[in-house]
Amino acid sequence: MKKLKFVTFYYKGIEQVGLLSKKNDRVYTIKELLESDRPNSMIDFIEDFNECVEKKLKYIYENSNNLEGIDISKVKLLAPIPEPRRGVICLGKNYAEHVNEVPSAIDFRKGLPENPIYFCKLVDRAIEDKGSISIHKDVSKQVDYEVELAVIIGKKGRDIPKDKVEEYVFGYTILNDISLRDIQAKHIQWFKGKSFDGTCPMGPCIVHKSEIKLPVKLDIKCYVNGELRQNSNTSKMIFDIPYIISEFSKGTTLKPGDIISTGTPSGVGMGFKPPKLLKVGDEIMCYIEKIGTLTNIVEDK
Amino acid sequence: MKKLKFVTFYYKGIEQVGLLSKKNDRVYTIKELLESDRPNSMIDFIEDFNECVEKKLKYIYENSNNLEGIDISKVKLLAPIPEPRRGVICLGKNYAEHVNEVPSAIDFRKGLPENPIYFCKLVDRAIEDKGSISIHKDVSKQVDYEVELAVIIGKKGRDIPKDKVEEYVFGYTILNDISLRDIQAKHIQWFKGKSFDGTCPMGPCIVHKSEIKLPVKLDIKCYVNGELRQNSNTSKMIFDIPYIISEFSKGTTLKPGDIISTGTPSGVGMGFKPPKLLKVGDEIMCYIEKIGTLTNIVEDK
Repeated sequence: MKKLKFVTFYYKGIEQVGLLSKKNDRVYTIKELLESDRPNSMIDFIEDFNECVEKKLKYIYENSNNLEGIDISKVKLLAPIPEPRRGVICLGKNYAEHVNEVPSAIDFRKGLPENPIYFCKLVDRAIEDKGSISIHKDVSKQVDYEVELAVIIGKKGRDIPKDKVEEYVFGYTILNDISLRDIQAKHIQWFKGKSFDGTCPMGPCIVHKSEIKLPVKLDIKCYVNGELRQNSNTSKMIFDIPYIISEFSKGTTLKPGDIISTGTPSGVGMGFKPPKLLKVGDEIMCYIEKIGTLTNIVEDK
Repeated sequence: MKKLKFVTFYYKGIEQVGLLSKKNDRVYTIKELLESDRPNSMIDFIEDFNECVEKKLKYIYENSNNLEGIDISKVKLLAPIPEPRRGVICLGKNYAEHVNEVPSAIDFRKGLPENPIYFCKLVDRAIEDKGSISIHKDVSKQVDYEVELAVIIGKKGRDIPKDKVEEYVFGYTILNDISLRDIQAKHIQWFKGKSFDGTCPMGPCIVHKSEIKLPVKLDIKCYVNGELRQNSNTSKMIFDIPYIISEFSKGTTLKPGDIISTGTPSGVGMGFKPPKLLKVGDEIMCYIEKIGTLTNIVEDK
């Protein structure tokens, strides 16, 4: 059992990268474990990561019973990558049952997509587990949730063959691709409606790929105020992770720390009749097997 | 006459930020002019820029006849922002005559857009003036040019009112939004077809906003192998710069160094019958009044 789970946290005024304890109740500072003055951020850590670091951390983790670490209640967890450098590379319509929920105002095409639909989500600052989502009431009446499995890229690469994709993956996290549906439709391309401040909850941790092997078969769920809304398995993606990454990397360089969010299953708010869109005070809990839960409250900000 | 034109250049193994001489034949290193150990990059410079720096640089520029500087033939000019941090925020269909050129495979909607169409162009590394454009022959048969006026954001801001937009602008440059039309159509959303490596020529310089006042009225042209293909004026944009920036910044924070490219006029390759798309060896020259020219050769890379 080598469940390496990495977090970014705030403690004594400093942003740090940490390893979660076996019981997820303590956090060990990576700088201390590696006896190094790096990493200063998760992206540093991903860039520095190699087999030697992996072996060392796995050894420490296996033998961590006497390690002190910091009580998790004493730190503030941040999103694992608090400021995604190049936004998030997102997938649209990547679960068959979800395709039928998408109204024609957002995409008039019917039927399953023949190719992955990539779009970009610009992120000012990603929202941490327990952090609040902004609903932007002044500009939108249709704010929606989307639980997604996000892949974190570990290594610079281009033209990555499908059977080599796993080499380029660092790990996995949960991403809630909060979407302003009316703004998506208003501006034709989805970019603006996906790029509002405070609409990218991510976390709580990055699970290293040694724990989640391709092809990924993980239960994925989303609850709003305790009601199960989305309930699927990542094996049901139309385009799987090797295809998504291989295809996107054709002629386009991926960089360490890039985030690729693999699309949402059915059960989003706009799919219900009448729609079940978000309102101030709603609690959204996203769950993905082997990763954990990402819980956020909707606020009027 | 205070034509402050800023460049990023490579000299003696170091990337530097510079000010162009009045005749554009010499470059003065900003660090030396400011007697400072910053800026190390154009984004540093934009972040540090303020009225005091502006006054000092204008004074030096006015009295620069005895300044030595470096002969421009001795430096390698780079794109003014060689690695755009968050890609480029682009506008689609923002000149009326161009709207009719866009085939239904890329956007089925007819008529003028009612709202700005924003999309994202991810950039590995921006291509400098005289640098080569990659045509990606292995994946695309339809590579096209688009001359555009790009706005460089100078100050962090959100919910920027239209009449305050100029405060948030740092300056202007030329951007050639090279587009893989078949890939744009293949992936439905335009993001992937716009985000290939080597498809974002930008430059040659950033002209400070004190030289180009809103509303912008600049001739904008594009020549391919000497043939005039695009020929318009930036005053013909459907959505002007104050509207574009004000609307995008609703609920979305813009940051110093962000690049907003304001759309292309008619005359792109796909608009001709038969289409005049790019091939290896083509020379594209983009021109915008008061900024200069951006010339690139298409290579098979």
